[in-house]
Amino acid sequence: MLSRAPADPDIEGMIQVSLVRSTRFSAGHRYWRPEWSAEENRETFGASANPHGHNYRLEVTVRGSVDPRTGFCVDLAALDDALDSVVRRLDQQEIGEALPEFAPGGRIPTTEELVRWLYHDLEGRIPGTARLERVRLEESEALAAEYAPGDGA
Amino acid sequence: MLSRAPADPDIEGMIQVSLVRSTRFSAGHRYWRPEWSAEENRETFGASANPHGHNYRLEVTVRGSVDPRTGFCVDLAALDDALDSVVRRLDQQEIGEALPEFAPGGRIPTTEELVRWLYHDLEGRIPGTARLERVRLEESEALAAEYAPGDGA
Amino acid sequence: MLSRAPADPDIEGMIQVSLVRSTRFSAGHRYWRPEWSAEENRETFGASANPHGHNYRLEVTVRGSVDPRTGFCVDLAALDDALDSVVRRLDQQEIGEALPEFAPGGRIPTTEELVRWLYHDLEGRIPGTARLERVRLEESEALAAEYAPGDGA
Amino acid sequence: MLSRAPADPDIEGMIQVSLVRSTRFSAGHRYWRPEWSAEENRETFGASANPHGHNYRLEVTVRGSVDPRTGFCVDLAALDDALDSVVRRLDQQEIGEALPEFAPGGRIPTTEELVRWLYHDLEGRIPGTARLERVRLEESEALAAEYAPGDGA
Amino acid sequence: MLSRAPADPDIEGMIQVSLVRSTRFSAGHRYWRPEWSAEENRETFGASANPHGHNYRLEVTVRGSVDPRTGFCVDLAALDDALDSVVRRLDQQEIGEALPEFAPGGRIPTTEELVRWLYHDLEGRIPGTARLERVRLEESEALAAEYAPGDGA
Amino acid sequence: MLSRAPADPDIEGMIQVSLVRSTRFSAGHRYWRPEWSAEENRETFGASANPHGHNYRLEVTVRGSVDPRTGFCVDLAALDDALDSVVRRLDQQEIGEALPEFAPGGRIPTTEELVRWLYHDLEGRIPGTARLERVRLEESEALAAEYAPGDGA
Repeated sequence: MLSRAPADPDIEGMIQVSLVRSTRFSAGHRYWRPEWSAEENRETFGASANPHGHNYRLEVTVRGSVDPRTGFCVDLAALDDALDSVVRRLDQQEIGEALPEFAPGGRIPTTEELVRWLYHDLEGRIPGTARLERVRLEESEALAAEYAPGDGA
Repeated sequence: MLSRAPADPDIEGMIQVSLVRSTRFSAGHRYWRPEWSAEENRETFGASANPHGHNYRLEVTVRGSVDPRTGFCVDLAALDDALDSVVRRLDQQEIGEALPEFAPGGRIPTTEELVRWLYHDLEGRIPGTARLERVRLEESEALAAEYAPGDGA
Repeated sequence: MLSRAPADPDIEGMIQVSLVRSTRFSAGHRYWRPEWSAEENRETFGASANPHGHNYRLEVTVRGSVDPRTGFCVDLAALDDALDSVVRRLDQQEIGEALPEFAPGGRIPTTEELVRWLYHDLEGRIPGTARLERVRLEESEALAAEYAPGDGA
Repeated sequence: MLSRAPADPDIEGMIQVSLVRSTRFSAGHRYWRPEWSAEENRETFGASANPHGHNYRLEVTVRGSVDPRTGFCVDLAALDDALDSVVRRLDQQEIGEALPEFAPGGRIPTTEELVRWLYHDLEGRIPGTARLERVRLEESEALAAEYAPGDGA
Repeated sequence: MLSRAPADPDIEGMIQVSLVRSTRFSAGHRYWRPEWSAEENRETFGASANPHGHNYRLEVTVRGSVDPRTGFCVDLAALDDALDSVVRRLDQQEIGEALPEFAPGGRIPTTEELVRWLYHDLEGRIPGTARLERVRLEESEALAAEYAPGDGA
Repeated sequence: MLSRAPADPDIEGMIQVSLVRSTRFSAGHRYWRPEWSAEENRETFGASANPHGHNYRLEVTVRGSVDPRTGFCVDLAALDDALDSVVRRLDQQEIGEALPEFAPGGRIPTTEELVRWLYHDLEGRIPGTARLERVRLEESEALAAEYAPGDGA
């Protein structure tokens, strides 16, 4: 018997908590549209037109009800598996080579585009009944992007 | 006379600002259900079944209107007293011994459960007219939980 | 032709992403109402009645749709120009001397008041179609204020 | 042929660089001498006499000559194996249970004692010709200990 | 009996460990020589001639032998008292008003001068047999000064 | 007259203080020896054989005597010019393209090699009488290299 656990799991089930999990990866990228001239690329993207890279920090927020037996709103080991699959594809990789959507001629690997890709890649892989609430991707200590469709976007 | 203060304190009073205050404490915990077998505990909680601990960072967001005389939306010294009362109970303590709700057989001291406990413990002690908007508890640089009932949970 | 860009820019245009940009400045301030006695100031403001200062961290969140050609929701160089104009007025300055609104007898330079001033100063200068969603000002690692009128304030 | 590599590997071999590698673990501990009374323990150790815990950050500095072919002064994968063996023994463990030297009646698991234990545990396992120069253990953002016998201690 | 404690306290006493303790304070300062013209001050000190301020982080390294009974190389509570006395004099103060040595016409409150003042202020107040090895003062995340006379300076 | 300045500038001149200045840049790199086979490169360098990148943090320590008139041991604006020249060459660049020493067939752009290059590049450009004491380059929050020839290397 869970002597001190809440009496009514249905009501308990309605209480939603957010869990915020983060991980890191290093990757290379460049902003370049092959259908544009070099001048146009330089003018639009500045130094970001050069191949360079960053230490990214990825922060994922999931939201769910807390299981009174375990105190968990999500199985953290399973959530980490989902994040690791992202890190395995991106860490120490060039993004345009690692992800077909960002290959030359495709999407430009800006923080805005990457955070949307990450959201959609992770969305269907959140374990259990929790749902993906928000993804934040930090390219540096001074620049991040956030995507949270539930905000009404 | 407040010569340069806004002309209409009523309208002024409707402008809400959030103040975010944080503090830290170190505490021990373990995830263990005494009514379960050791195997069941290990299987469910992994290494978290061992007594261990963390440096927690507690971040509290309060929301209120700004008093045009002081520029404050909350009396920070009084807010700090509320936070200190939490830190006094938890810093350099074993959570299952320090808080009856988390004693063996009660709630499991996960970040999700702790953040809800902190919210309810602090909710009635926010000074003045400000209200508690959100509590965030960081267990490590890679894991946090947030509780904000006003989000519609 | 943008071969891999989304097929329908109108739908694309409805997808909103937030970009979070931060910068830093150091400034001096004091909390003091000249129309009050020294005792009244000390009692209300404590040690903050003394001239002192902080390393502030300013974090601005803008929200907009992502241009499929550039992957940007805002022209970052132009956004940085707006932030730099703030930093130029405040870095290594005494706030009461640098900003008329905070001159003696005016608004008290608390984090709450400063974050509102920053919001209104920056609001009209966000480049392109993005809009200012939120401003966060951190006075120290333990104190911040946030202002986001769209939250219903 | 290493066309642009330094001409004289012997001289090159004399140039020493330090590599600093860090990792993290969370562990529980308490300061308690079983041969002392409870009062004596409380008086000496204060709240640290309670079981509690921390997020530790371990930073290891090795020093060696740079191999002109690889640019490495140490095989980082092998160094990480040595650090992982420490983390495996300590992460989410109670130190007095995990390490016999710190069992009740043995050494007190202070940051000073732990950093010396870590140094001696790691010293013989630095791969290749590099040597262990210094170990730093951070118990919190405000407390660390360093051990570097080569400093003349 | 300290069953697992080192057998020979004399040899033990020769093993030196460094303990690194940090604290924070916010203070105002300006670089200004009253015997110079305004132009000369501006030319030499730039914007630092304005009253402004910082969140300082003070880091003190003490070095001593580890007491095998307590595992301490210094009494941390007594060391914190010494640091608190500094923080009490400087936190939320204008340095030129708080410290006579830095009054107008005296020493300029640069990070270099402040770190020396802090070293000499703290040197005689390190408890027990430990000695002050090094003081580091961080004015911002990008600027610090260190003073360690034992380095042969 | 500098009324409170030290009486004897010669003795004063012998007191050495270290100033630590840091900056950041983002760059791309890969570890690849063109004279080796792909297998040999993969075996030696692992995933670092891929083009990728990092947010680097560069920390420079200079040491000098404090000028009693200014409180400076180095002209910070001139030191920043030296650091900016490094950042201009490396920020948002691919290191193998930006620095001839690291072009294909030359030195491998490891943290160890880069920190030595940075030391030698900066050594002759420290303004005034201060000397370069140490350079630290952080490739991530978990890996850094330090070079300080004066340590006896």
